[in-house]
Amino acid sequence: MRDFSTDHRWLSINTATLRGEGSLDRIVAACARHGIGAIAPWRDQVAGIGLERTARLVREHDLALSGYCRGGMFPAMDAAGRRTALDDNRRAVDEAKALSAACLVLVVGSLPGALAGAPLSKDLFAARSDVHDGIAATLEYARSVAMPLAIEPLHPMYAADRACVNTMEQALDLCDAIDPTGSGDLGVAVDVYHVWWDPKLEAQIARAGRARLLAFHVCDWLVPTRDLLEDRGMMGDGVIEIARIRGWVEAAGFSGWSEVEIFSREHWWKRPADEVLRTCIERHRSVV
Amino acid sequence: MRDFSTDHRWLSINTATLRGEGSLDRIVAACARHGIGAIAPWRDQVAGIGLERTARLVREHDLALSGYCRGGMFPAMDAAGRRTALDDNRRAVDEAKALSAACLVLVVGSLPGALAGAPLSKDLFAARSDVHDGIAATLEYARSVAMPLAIEPLHPMYAADRACVNTMEQALDLCDAIDPTGSGDLGVAVDVYHVWWDPKLEAQIARAGRARLLAFHVCDWLVPTRDLLEDRGMMGDGVIEIARIRGWVEAAGFSGWSEVEIFSREHWWKRPADEVLRTCIERHRSVV
Repeated sequence: MRDFSTDHRWLSINTATLRGEGSLDRIVAACARHGIGAIAPWRDQVAGIGLERTARLVREHDLALSGYCRGGMFPAMDAAGRRTALDDNRRAVDEAKALSAACLVLVVGSLPGALAGAPLSKDLFAARSDVHDGIAATLEYARSVAMPLAIEPLHPMYAADRACVNTMEQALDLCDAIDPTGSGDLGVAVDVYHVWWDPKLEAQIARAGRARLLAFHVCDWLVPTRDLLEDRGMMGDGVIEIARIRGWVEAAGFSGWSEVEIFSREHWWKRPADEVLRTCIERHRSVV
Repeated sequence: MRDFSTDHRWLSINTATLRGEGSLDRIVAACARHGIGAIAPWRDQVAGIGLERTARLVREHDLALSGYCRGGMFPAMDAAGRRTALDDNRRAVDEAKALSAACLVLVVGSLPGALAGAPLSKDLFAARSDVHDGIAATLEYARSVAMPLAIEPLHPMYAADRACVNTMEQALDLCDAIDPTGSGDLGVAVDVYHVWWDPKLEAQIARAGRARLLAFHVCDWLVPTRDLLEDRGMMGDGVIEIARIRGWVEAAGFSGWSEVEIFSREHWWKRPADEVLRTCIERHRSVV
């Protein structure tokens, strides 16, 4: 297991962690001030300053992209909706490629309409079927431009509105169904927040192996958790045994970035970016 | 699959659903007014009016108990804590027996201190070990008085503070480890709120079979869900395909009560008991 205690060369900052800072150029500048070597930006933040400007900033600061957030959201009520989703995923692949991201992260979606608060269906089976087909179609294109796709299993509390893929086992079953060769073109993003509770986590990480482990995200599960979406904790402030899980991931062959992704409306998004980054670096070294 | 549309003979009311009504005698009176045949009371509500008075009320109104809530909370930081938990579970078994409950429901517990908001440990593995041992010890006593124990896998969002058993598969693995004969003394309580998202649900219900399926709880998953604990919905108001899951449970041999358990601080707990019960009965007939 790599020693993170003496530097932060393997630290990546998911730019959602710094939403309080405003636009992506300000976020990148803050990361540069702290010697951050990698980021994972969100599409809306990239759109905010433009793809070309983002690419220029990334080059100027010699930043790697541990991932690009995000593709997915495949399920829809009809063929037109599914086609719209596929077109959008194709654009996401192109953007990820333009920024030389390590992978495009897929939050696969679930019941159509649910994310907007008005589910149009209760059929998880239909949603899973759309997800399978959407990933398969997107993979075909992503392969042609050599952009790996990382399915992110989300915590089951997001099963209605964000992702109907909720365990590592389920995500890996999907990978095996769509990409049986295990080429490295399709894999998973392991976010400790989503999977820490799973009694099969260690075994499924081992099953994933190096070819399927495309990203590793960290934050912490706070006790109590006051909001289903935006009350994630800084590493060390919650109950997840992050280093234990990183040990499993590295034992399986992963040697990439440790990406900090914290949604925290009431705390970290209200703190200055420099304080957030100082804390991320300190915790990366001490508890990740 | 039984036809629930013409009456509510298989409807049970978990008394937490009527917390807004006050004491257990008022709750029982409300259930009696609506021809409810079964309840599942909570220990604190029973303690509020006394076990003997509860037993008398249950007899007077000819009520069955679909379950008794609840035993469990086994993990502790030391042997004294674990012994205290076992003693408390023995009392819960005795109370369940005094009330002729169909089973004692076990919410198994997780990280010590977490339920009070101050976790003393992050070790899920230790918690799971305490849970295994606690159930095994409690089963020995429960068997001697013929009180079945029903492990309730809770939604993974409760993995830190309420239960480190979070899927049907995990609960059934525990059952098989502790009670390999499948005697019916140890099984599971299937609450659709906790398990609806699970891609392996249908297969694990089939695996459980008649001997392990000791209770069936219903409510609904609201979109959006505004609180992790107390924002459960009335059947039909959310996205769970309840009838589909009941079909699986009955196909596996379950033929007991359908127990309504709704924690709803901002809505149902503020409505009059008669309105809540009228709605439960209507939804039991139309969507369960």
